[in-house]
Amino acid sequence: MKKFGFIGLGIMGNAMALNLVKAGLDVTVWNRNSDKCAELVALGAHQGKSPKQVAETCDITFTIVSDPVAALAICNGPDGVLAGIGEGRSYIDMSTVDHVTSQTISAAIIKAGGRFLEAPISGTKKPAEDGTLIILAAGDKSLYDDALPAFEIMGKMSPYLGEIGQGAKMKLVVNMIMGGMLSIFSEGMSLGLKANLDGQQLLDIIDAGAMANPMFKIKGTMLLDENYTTSFPLKHMQKDMRLAVDLGDKLNLTLPTAAITNESFKQARKAGYADEDIAAIYKTVK
Amino acid sequence: MKKFGFIGLGIMGNAMALNLVKAGLDVTVWNRNSDKCAELVALGAHQGKSPKQVAETCDITFTIVSDPVAALAICNGPDGVLAGIGEGRSYIDMSTVDHVTSQTISAAIIKAGGRFLEAPISGTKKPAEDGTLIILAAGDKSLYDDALPAFEIMGKMSPYLGEIGQGAKMKLVVNMIMGGMLSIFSEGMSLGLKANLDGQQLLDIIDAGAMANPMFKIKGTMLLDENYTTSFPLKHMQKDMRLAVDLGDKLNLTLPTAAITNESFKQARKAGYADEDIAAIYKTVK
Amino acid sequence: MKKFGFIGLGIMGNAMALNLVKAGLDVTVWNRNSDKCAELVALGAHQGKSPKQVAETCDITFTIVSDPVAALAICNGPDGVLAGIGEGRSYIDMSTVDHVTSQTISAAIIKAGGRFLEAPISGTKKPAEDGTLIILAAGDKSLYDDALPAFEIMGKMSPYLGEIGQGAKMKLVVNMIMGGMLSIFSEGMSLGLKANLDGQQLLDIIDAGAMANPMFKIKGTMLLDENYTTSFPLKHMQKDMRLAVDLGDKLNLTLPTAAITNESFKQARKAGYADEDIAAIYKTVK
Amino acid sequence: MKKFGFIGLGIMGNAMALNLVKAGLDVTVWNRNSDKCAELVALGAHQGKSPKQVAETCDITFTIVSDPVAALAICNGPDGVLAGIGEGRSYIDMSTVDHVTSQTISAAIIKAGGRFLEAPISGTKKPAEDGTLIILAAGDKSLYDDALPAFEIMGKMSPYLGEIGQGAKMKLVVNMIMGGMLSIFSEGMSLGLKANLDGQQLLDIIDAGAMANPMFKIKGTMLLDENYTTSFPLKHMQKDMRLAVDLGDKLNLTLPTAAITNESFKQARKAGYADEDIAAIYKTVK
Repeated sequence: MKKFGFIGLGIMGNAMALNLVKAGLDVTVWNRNSDKCAELVALGAHQGKSPKQVAETCDITFTIVSDPVAALAICNGPDGVLAGIGEGRSYIDMSTVDHVTSQTISAAIIKAGGRFLEAPISGTKKPAEDGTLIILAAGDKSLYDDALPAFEIMGKMSPYLGEIGQGAKMKLVVNMIMGGMLSIFSEGMSLGLKANLDGQQLLDIIDAGAMANPMFKIKGTMLLDENYTTSFPLKHMQKDMRLAVDLGDKLNLTLPTAAITNESFKQARKAGYADEDIAAIYKTVK
Repeated sequence: MKKFGFIGLGIMGNAMALNLVKAGLDVTVWNRNSDKCAELVALGAHQGKSPKQVAETCDITFTIVSDPVAALAICNGPDGVLAGIGEGRSYIDMSTVDHVTSQTISAAIIKAGGRFLEAPISGTKKPAEDGTLIILAAGDKSLYDDALPAFEIMGKMSPYLGEIGQGAKMKLVVNMIMGGMLSIFSEGMSLGLKANLDGQQLLDIIDAGAMANPMFKIKGTMLLDENYTTSFPLKHMQKDMRLAVDLGDKLNLTLPTAAITNESFKQARKAGYADEDIAAIYKTVK
Repeated sequence: MKKFGFIGLGIMGNAMALNLVKAGLDVTVWNRNSDKCAELVALGAHQGKSPKQVAETCDITFTIVSDPVAALAICNGPDGVLAGIGEGRSYIDMSTVDHVTSQTISAAIIKAGGRFLEAPISGTKKPAEDGTLIILAAGDKSLYDDALPAFEIMGKMSPYLGEIGQGAKMKLVVNMIMGGMLSIFSEGMSLGLKANLDGQQLLDIIDAGAMANPMFKIKGTMLLDENYTTSFPLKHMQKDMRLAVDLGDKLNLTLPTAAITNESFKQARKAGYADEDIAAIYKTVK
Repeated sequence: MKKFGFIGLGIMGNAMALNLVKAGLDVTVWNRNSDKCAELVALGAHQGKSPKQVAETCDITFTIVSDPVAALAICNGPDGVLAGIGEGRSYIDMSTVDHVTSQTISAAIIKAGGRFLEAPISGTKKPAEDGTLIILAAGDKSLYDDALPAFEIMGKMSPYLGEIGQGAKMKLVVNMIMGGMLSIFSEGMSLGLKANLDGQQLLDIIDAGAMANPMFKIKGTMLLDENYTTSFPLKHMQKDMRLAVDLGDKLNLTLPTAAITNESFKQARKAGYADEDIAAIYKTVK
């Protein structure tokens, strides 16, 4: 039986590891604060001593941490994954990091004789618990094939996207579309309300037609309630809009709607809504 | 039993009238080219002699024609609806017309003693056949209540939106959001393809997440196939974008994403895609 | 000697008529508040009794009033110019009015047997006093030729622009460029100041190069002083931006920079700066 | 008498060095292709053997080369300026380079005991010949004071802008305003011509008013002649627009007009006009 490692037991990681354990896989977990391991160990997981030891003793080690700095620390730090990796062992980083960080980690792991995949995820707490995440995998194809059974436990969809970097790019494109949708949606809601239309009727009509989508339903209710509880921080979306526009620049594409949506998110950031939910873009329009 | 009139048996009108007849209502139909009445009459409809005669003999007369000019002609022309309307008889115009046309017809019908509703629809041929249209009704509330059973046969949703003009405004807001969504979606598809992502994978990933909506599915496949068969002509969408931006101007709202989307549709129109489907906006971005 | 009429002695009109009188022309003046005529009469002008009487007794009558409503009243009102015009007499409206107003007045004057020119001006109080206005004349070419000596007294430049409406369009194009220049200038000043550059140095550097222009000098100082004393009200500029974008729509042109500048002026209007100077656009950027 | 070095005798450098020599200064020149030194030596300049030897033997050495790569090579290459610099000797780089390149060179020179100024210039061949450049100096203030007499020979204006990096930022802000002016000007010219206004009249009217500036005169004639002979390559302007928008992002500013102007220049670049003059932006609008 294959041995899996799982590093990083935050809200997302904990739910994902739990699904692996419940599915009967052999899982060794590690977290900076080891208290978080208790529940998983009680359900049958092994407790790792360090990222190094996890990588050393498992066939495939997953990591999901909060940002590029943390991802680099888990890999390169003292007792890090890199120190434990080698021929026959594999590493899959599911954190959302930029292109350069991903390539840095990939190169180091491969040089040490291991295999590597980047696999950022799309989805929040609920899909993590339900095992319905979207996993954007890119890098070593043979590792992808080996990891697929585990991906299928954690997610409902885990396409193989090609060489390292394509996972990050896919996420950028998807987020750019999300940002643009939210911007025109906010403008439409503002226009409707100013024109004395009923906000709930407007939401219901959209929800009954070809544009119906879960995001408008959720964010639409937030707008009407003036509730901007953060699920996706606005400043992160603005950063993604900027990166997407810059990618278009490099690829010789004009992206006017994305460029102006970026300005709208910047305006919201400037107005002090950086840490509120992306839905707070509405406040600069209404 | 209430008598209903139905004027205008184009693709939409024919399907809608058919549903009324099949539901067992007493329906009198009229069309400029009377050949189109045959099928309905065979199923039990009466054949009207003129818009005037239909309005005169029915309690509630529906009309759906192609544009404001046709709508005005059906109402005001010789043997028009106006000549047949009066106390106790009602008129419901389901054509998509501008605010001013709608108010002109409304004022004339009311002056002649009748009741009036504007009820533009959202939806295409298939929902018309299936009786799943979205009907955006506004005007006389008592007429709305009387017409509701017929609306419920033709549509899956027919909210009452308030005074005359609110139906047209709701449609404008909905179309503005649709145009903006299509613009950012086209930019995202272009960016993805230029970045060597697989188009179908991108569509699948969007379709699996919070942004999943029928329009992206349909238009996305059209973009990948470079198929711009017209279902909603691009020039009409551009006109709606312009009207929405102008409405924002009147209501003291800034709508930067809508304004720049309008420019993108104008660019597509200028490039010669006015009569192609709205999806042809993609051709100016890719 | 040719007889000239001059109606409307506001800040602009008074200075313009004064130049005509000082140049030795035979001028009959009229103003709604007749007190304003005194100075001119003391210098040799005749005092008219009504717009009708001025038009009746003069070869060429000029009018400059504040808006379309006033321009229509002077022409069509009781004792208006139209009542006095006829074969051999001519009317030149120098007010800034829209296309439709201009054509309405033109048609009425021509129908009454007179000749007509629209001649909106570009320039403010100082150029009016100095006789250095820019006069944008369009309409009857023979009248233009007859009026040229008077134009040359009032302005430094008075090109003939073609048929009625071309004067208004020229002014729209010029103002659209002005609005766009001011928008990018405001953004540049904001960026410079935020980047810790010295505002006055930035102005001096621009003023020393190929972009040097009087407007940046004047408005630049206003921005640094946070002084928005109205010389050209922001709401009028925003209206012109909107009209220019709409003209582009009719002529099948995309004008993205103008469209987004329009949104910036709308934002300033929404923020409460409608009646401040156009320079107040800066306040929404900084 | 102070000894000056001058490295880089391209179109700009040659004209600038010539002015220093003609003014009677002691100048040692060096160029990769030494043929270019002949004229200057004939007029009294000394011929240097290498950048190292120039820096070693002169009090203040100026360099102006084409891009960051060349600027780094002159400084750090074998026999480069850095090898010759030291206590009591100074280096002034007048090339247009980015922030990072400038700081790299600055740090190296200072570490070696020398003084450093960045001094990018604004202006083209003619002002270089006429000694009317605008010199944007930033860095060591005492060196600025020492170099001022030479700056005043080469330029008409050479403000001291503060610490290293401020010269590059000033140039970015100035170019961003230039790009935006050109974009709205192109849109205005297109709108005017489509509206059947005379292009030359439009230029004349602008040139007579508050917006009159040398750039519109020169570029306006180019547009009417459809002549896009490169004086400032469009791709460089687009790069500056992007950098300016990114700087705004860092400084928490929204720059919608700049962002959309950037998209217009990108569109022109995508259409194949990257190496034509910045005026070619007009071709994507008309």
